[in-house]
Amino acid sequence: MTTIEECLMKGVVTGMTRSIGIDIGGTSIKTALTEEGSVLDFRTVETPVDDPRQGAAEIHRLISDWMSLADGSIGICAPGPLDTMEGRFLDPPNLPGWHGFSLKDELEDKTGRQCLVENDANAAAVGEFMYGAGRSFQHIVYVTISTGIGAGIVIDGKLLSGAQFQAGEAGNMIIRSEGPEQPGMNIGSWESLASGTALGIRAEKEIGLTGGAAEVFREQASGNQKAARLVSSWIEDTACGTANLLHLLNPEAVIFGGGVMNAAAQILPELQREVESRVYESMRSGVQLYAAELKNQAGVIGAAALDHVPRIGAGTSAGRSI
Amino acid sequence: MTTIEECLMKGVVTGMTRSIGIDIGGTSIKTALTEEGSVLDFRTVETPVDDPRQGAAEIHRLISDWMSLADGSIGICAPGPLDTMEGRFLDPPNLPGWHGFSLKDELEDKTGRQCLVENDANAAAVGEFMYGAGRSFQHIVYVTISTGIGAGIVIDGKLLSGAQFQAGEAGNMIIRSEGPEQPGMNIGSWESLASGTALGIRAEKEIGLTGGAAEVFREQASGNQKAARLVSSWIEDTACGTANLLHLLNPEAVIFGGGVMNAAAQILPELQREVESRVYESMRSGVQLYAAELKNQAGVIGAAALDHVPRIGAGTSAGRSI
Repeated sequence: MTTIEECLMKGVVTGMTRSIGIDIGGTSIKTALTEEGSVLDFRTVETPVDDPRQGAAEIHRLISDWMSLADGSIGICAPGPLDTMEGRFLDPPNLPGWHGFSLKDELEDKTGRQCLVENDANAAAVGEFMYGAGRSFQHIVYVTISTGIGAGIVIDGKLLSGAQFQAGEAGNMIIRSEGPEQPGMNIGSWESLASGTALGIRAEKEIGLTGGAAEVFREQASGNQKAARLVSSWIEDTACGTANLLHLLNPEAVIFGGGVMNAAAQILPELQREVESRVYESMRSGVQLYAAELKNQAGVIGAAALDHVPRIGAGTSAGRSI
Repeated sequence: MTTIEECLMKGVVTGMTRSIGIDIGGTSIKTALTEEGSVLDFRTVETPVDDPRQGAAEIHRLISDWMSLADGSIGICAPGPLDTMEGRFLDPPNLPGWHGFSLKDELEDKTGRQCLVENDANAAAVGEFMYGAGRSFQHIVYVTISTGIGAGIVIDGKLLSGAQFQAGEAGNMIIRSEGPEQPGMNIGSWESLASGTALGIRAEKEIGLTGGAAEVFREQASGNQKAARLVSSWIEDTACGTANLLHLLNPEAVIFGGGVMNAAAQILPELQREVESRVYESMRSGVQLYAAELKNQAGVIGAAALDHVPRIGAGTSAGRSI
């Protein structure tokens, strides 16, 4: 790991801009000092799931000696739904103790810096767009498949935010309206069919594998035919959701990240074929699927880059616009 | 109908900008001289389906005496898929004789004016955004439900075009991956479930009504219980597709036009409830559904306004960008 001293020296040498990014998850808070998408220093702490004020204090403690090294705003990402304008948690299912907490206000008070808050999929999209697999495009969709499914949409170099800051909630898209059910989601939602959780449930029920999505891919790779059939079925569901994104947004590229996809990048060629078979002929050449490059640092790197990527379509007509 | 003389006089009085819009359909070509979204003069001719050069000549004949009255570009809309940058037809299913025809080149040669070409759903979206139900918003999705289903997306006051100019192809979104089938479309596509054609087919098969979607709505309105149940089922499918649009794009408003929706605007309150039940709680207040206002003139009015609304996300990374 680079020391702060090395980083300071490098900064003096390169004259590059350093930023602070924070990624709040259900189990850990990651913080990073970055420079043009590279992580110079990285610190993490367990998320105090019941005490957001303690969380803010921990964050402040972790980043305080970076403050003199970093310019601009502090970027923060967290699980949605969030009011990204006000930097306030709404009702994220995996952080119940943080509901209603105004993280932006709390951290701005502590640090004296502007804080930008974005949901984690959007921040990862910004990271991949600026420094990862999307860096040569202007119009991408980033899809994260892990426990759930989410997306972040960059159009014309800007992050699509949405009237209630909820653009990119791709996991709740309905792709099979007759089932299956998942609490809190639409019946037949993409997430209920193709998330890591959904794949793990199917694996246990249909072929007796209890080790979750990771085990399914390991078994497939080692020649287990039942696992291979299950993976093919999962790829078909993944292709349905992806085809929907393409038909609505027709981006230059779709970039797949998140725990499941990071472990399953070898399926991209088969996914490519399945998606191609589900789009209009005239769109087929535009099916450009890529594996994310920033892996589990996409969140912190993207958060640190939030002030470089303007939001569009943000806020409502009732006067909330950026 | 306003005469050209009246229009000239009105123009002199108001100093407003007049534009020419052209809407090419499978059966007729509509042309209009417009002023700030109002149609001053309107002319139509049967589409020469086998002879696009004759079509271009007919258009030139219809609009030639408007040329001195109108400023700026001539806007044209037509059924997709189109290469909107080059103004060339690709392979629209209902205009087979026009495949590959470069309408933009042909009309620019004839008129000496720049011609802008856009697909019909996108042009109607521009019309509604500028002068119809979307005029007080910056971020809308326009959905047309007629023979098929299509959409046009305006974000931050700009038309989302797409890497292959195919953003908004909402009809091919998969909402029930297990069926039904429709040639040329995805199995279980929104269009195969909820277009006017699909509703007409179900009406004939399930309740013996042979008069298409219009008859279904008439029968529902006059108390036919079977027709009412069918309409409810159609509303559910329509709600699934609409919920998908909302989750991905989170617009300020969704505006419904096209022949079926123009005849069925009374179903909007029920559609509103069905959509609300399919979006996250935190998005529910943002479910704003409206009936289109420009009806069957949305295409010509929108075409005439194309030069007022920039495209975003257009062209590919291979150098085609606007």
